[in-house]
Amino acid sequence: MTKQIPGIQLSRTHNTQHDSGMPYGRYRAFEPVTVPDRTWPDTKITHAPRWLSTDLRDGNQALIDPMTPDRKMRMFELLVRMGYKEIEIGFPAASQTDFDFVRQLVERDLIPDDVRVSVLTQAREDLIERTVSSLVGAPNATVHLYNATAPLFQRVVFGVSEAECIAIATRGTEWVMKYAEQLLDGTHFGYQYSPEIFTQTPTDFALEVCERVSDVWQPEAGREIILNLPATVEMSTPNTYADQIEYFGRNLTRREHSAISLHPHNDRGTAVAATELALMAGADRVEGCLFGHGERTGNVDLVTLAMNLFSQGIDPQIDLSDIDEVRRTVEYCTNLPVHPRHPYAGDLVYTAFSGSHQDAIKKGLEDLDRIAAEQGVPVGEIPWEAPYLPIDPKDVGRTYEAVIRVNSQSGKGGVAYILKSEHKLDLPRRLQIEFSRVVQQATDDSGKEMTGEDIWAAFGDAYLHRETPLRLNSVHTSSAAGEKDQLTVNVYVNGEIQELHGTGNGPIAAFVDAINGLPEDFDVRVLDYNEHALSSGGDAIAAAYVECAVRGEILWGVGLDANIVTASLKAVISAVNRA
Amino acid sequence: MTKQIPGIQLSRTHNTQHDSGMPYGRYRAFEPVTVPDRTWPDTKITHAPRWLSTDLRDGNQALIDPMTPDRKMRMFELLVRMGYKEIEIGFPAASQTDFDFVRQLVERDLIPDDVRVSVLTQAREDLIERTVSSLVGAPNATVHLYNATAPLFQRVVFGVSEAECIAIATRGTEWVMKYAEQLLDGTHFGYQYSPEIFTQTPTDFALEVCERVSDVWQPEAGREIILNLPATVEMSTPNTYADQIEYFGRNLTRREHSAISLHPHNDRGTAVAATELALMAGADRVEGCLFGHGERTGNVDLVTLAMNLFSQGIDPQIDLSDIDEVRRTVEYCTNLPVHPRHPYAGDLVYTAFSGSHQDAIKKGLEDLDRIAAEQGVPVGEIPWEAPYLPIDPKDVGRTYEAVIRVNSQSGKGGVAYILKSEHKLDLPRRLQIEFSRVVQQATDDSGKEMTGEDIWAAFGDAYLHRETPLRLNSVHTSSAAGEKDQLTVNVYVNGEIQELHGTGNGPIAAFVDAINGLPEDFDVRVLDYNEHALSSGGDAIAAAYVECAVRGEILWGVGLDANIVTASLKAVISAVNRA
Repeated sequence: MTKQIPGIQLSRTHNTQHDSGMPYGRYRAFEPVTVPDRTWPDTKITHAPRWLSTDLRDGNQALIDPMTPDRKMRMFELLVRMGYKEIEIGFPAASQTDFDFVRQLVERDLIPDDVRVSVLTQAREDLIERTVSSLVGAPNATVHLYNATAPLFQRVVFGVSEAECIAIATRGTEWVMKYAEQLLDGTHFGYQYSPEIFTQTPTDFALEVCERVSDVWQPEAGREIILNLPATVEMSTPNTYADQIEYFGRNLTRREHSAISLHPHNDRGTAVAATELALMAGADRVEGCLFGHGERTGNVDLVTLAMNLFSQGIDPQIDLSDIDEVRRTVEYCTNLPVHPRHPYAGDLVYTAFSGSHQDAIKKGLEDLDRIAAEQGVPVGEIPWEAPYLPIDPKDVGRTYEAVIRVNSQSGKGGVAYILKSEHKLDLPRRLQIEFSRVVQQATDDSGKEMTGEDIWAAFGDAYLHRETPLRLNSVHTSSAAGEKDQLTVNVYVNGEIQELHGTGNGPIAAFVDAINGLPEDFDVRVLDYNEHALSSGGDAIAAAYVECAVRGEILWGVGLDANIVTASLKAVISAVNRA
Repeated sequence: MTKQIPGIQLSRTHNTQHDSGMPYGRYRAFEPVTVPDRTWPDTKITHAPRWLSTDLRDGNQALIDPMTPDRKMRMFELLVRMGYKEIEIGFPAASQTDFDFVRQLVERDLIPDDVRVSVLTQAREDLIERTVSSLVGAPNATVHLYNATAPLFQRVVFGVSEAECIAIATRGTEWVMKYAEQLLDGTHFGYQYSPEIFTQTPTDFALEVCERVSDVWQPEAGREIILNLPATVEMSTPNTYADQIEYFGRNLTRREHSAISLHPHNDRGTAVAATELALMAGADRVEGCLFGHGERTGNVDLVTLAMNLFSQGIDPQIDLSDIDEVRRTVEYCTNLPVHPRHPYAGDLVYTAFSGSHQDAIKKGLEDLDRIAAEQGVPVGEIPWEAPYLPIDPKDVGRTYEAVIRVNSQSGKGGVAYILKSEHKLDLPRRLQIEFSRVVQQATDDSGKEMTGEDIWAAFGDAYLHRETPLRLNSVHTSSAAGEKDQLTVNVYVNGEIQELHGTGNGPIAAFVDAINGLPEDFDVRVLDYNEHALSSGGDAIAAAYVECAVRGEILWGVGLDANIVTASLKAVISAVNRA
């Protein structure tokens, strides 16, 4: 029987049928150091590395809108709260803003005792003096010096020889020591050196420069040197970085007094992997940014690295128990989004769309409950193992979501599609997921598939038609340049009309201020806001979507109105009425 | 001197100062197969693998809005145009839409002769019959069968033993062969089997199941079997997948007639790396999606994989010479964004923000020009090597952008910030980058830093005040349910007023239709569109931003007007006038 089916005849290995037309001949394969007796593939990561966040330096410098001082402070506070103990806070000799930010942290005594701040500098004496002077009074501070060691940079950018390159690094180190002695009495001082770009520098030469720098610094017990080895541009598959790191660590003298530090970027989409393999190869410390901001494709993502450790039973040393709060703060500070498929934090990553996935997850979660019940312990105390969910979403403050398909036979499945195509409502992604849970509940209860009309009715019941405890009657706002908005509203509170007053940076903030003054103590905070017109033209209806925390519960509300302010206030009320 | 600086005293390796409070004790480290004599770390990738796109199957099933038939067709055409020769087009027994889409491709003869389509099925006889029947008439087609082999799934989801698991796979294979013989006369038929989830299955058992399946299929010359080894959930560092693949390949019989195929997902953010290391470990074929769509964190990203090969001088076998067009089509089909830092394709990845990066890139590009001139060849014919740019952006139809900081001393740097804070204009990211080039040019010309007023004047000159060749006078639109919009405009064309008519799905499309009829032959296509109100309230001004291709040149236009339709038409005119 089998012989009659020809099977396929594509070549097993090299597909030579066509040429893509891409000019690949311009590029050459990266040639890394060879380490045939490497040991890292047999090792495992058993503990968290030392983390350094460079969100305020490398991350900040690559934002379209660099952070304002206020946003920098929000970011610094977030990093401290999460547990980062080493934080690079700027490039003070290159930017007055950075200088002022360092001074602000020091002078207002905002750096906790167990947190070490560091600042970056180039190897010029005037810049080093300025850099060191920014740190006066800091309890724990590190100066991070770098110079170009890669041949391409020596030749094209700076026109220096290898000997001159070494001299720049050692002289710079001497200047750092000189000004630290002069200016930083009382500071627990540290030193970090980076040969830039390490991955593009022959590893033996990078070693040579680092050895000469260490000759000057003289590391010893209680006086470490941090040797930071940047992959400022990712050059090849991630194993090559691990080989370079293993080679470097093996051949370095004074290894026990040196911290080998990684600084990967993500040009090839493998920065997380390169970091993990390089940690297996013996590195001690990792520099990166939350959600991977930084020049071009960004620095390595510290959130994914920490959560990868967590998922293997290792304390990440970082608190990510409310990953959405971390994400919101980073999105606010950077003005850039976290992708819906971003590991551990994206909107879609704890969501199952396929029916077979949903079925498997349901059975897996039931099985965990059963095992826990048998052992008489909470489910959190038995080992996590569930199909398609690498971690329990609750451990990062999220929930598992099964998104059901409605009307899937039409090929226009999805609740969101129906609301958009039939009712012009373009729901934000997290609201789509929230509402699909409402629909799921309804279909579970009824056991039937829902029609488009059923879905619209369910949407109205959930978001549009509730009138208690709050219902909007009328609104008056006034705003003047340089002043906060003033708002007066007439609202039915459990059927009784009341006039409320509030102030804020805009009408929503003023309205929230007004209703938070009610004795009902709704404790409303607005987390996200979207609004769009349902159609073109002057008499269009606007749809507003507001994500709120109401007494700690996170909910979306929706408002429809011809007036865009009224629509947004109705959306806040919708969220409150759903709580 | 050195002795007086205490240096830092953080522990070199294990940071035990604090506990994150995260419940890491619930998780256990993944225990992969051990391969102490692995050879993959010494190998290099030298050619592209066989690619399979599963955008229309695994990608599509995990979209909030699954693709409509029209979008599926757009995606299929894109994949064919890019050079994919194996395309998974659906799960026909699970979805009538998928079944109909397969029939449409076959019956309209839309599958090129050198393209093989495949369809997924579970191992039930009725589903297999239905699956095979969807392929009747296809010239080259593969059936892809899977069943659960992971112990967790056997125990929790299906309640089957190992022997039953093997029987499900072999019986399924027999049914595939039976129905293929009955129904697919004339089809060049292929077979693919996946033990699900390979990474969570003991590798010896996965091997055992695959051997028994091959016993049934009887692979031989011209009759290969594809053994697809899914990492449907990423379980550990990427080297463990490579170890599993090397072990599997070494111990498989009939290796020369078997294609070992990878199907990685990105739960730990290392799917690209896992794929690359597994290719080094001997795999032949890769399944993934453009920009990494698929359940949760997505399938491995085929774009990054192809470009990583390209950057090492290897023909990717995929045409990505217009990566923005690929991105736009995928964003249209999936209704999900590509992140601004996505490797090779994000808005920011060919952008340098730091002055030292900009300086190095400038010198590097000049050096390439110099070398090319010395050799008397075009710059494209000498090996690419430039600081901070792993590839020449032009090879993917992009340009290098240096984003300058204006007013950087205030900490509120950035042209975009000034336009937003002072003029309420919230520019789309690509427009921000485009306008920063205008500003860069102006500062290069003047040699001075620009003030906020200078920037606003430059913005007006570039986008708002040009009145030739086109200036809008008046607009009338009419739309009726089920019909295209009709639009009549009075437009000054080089100072002379004309009445134009157009039709389209909306006012912008109708307007473009109208002006494309002019003898000036502007050849306008709209690529992207954004609009927002400058303030709240009924009398608000709207700002519209439109990205257009005008005679092939890609440009943004901006329009401001109280009427949102007028604002958007002004934006189209702004782009045309800039061309």
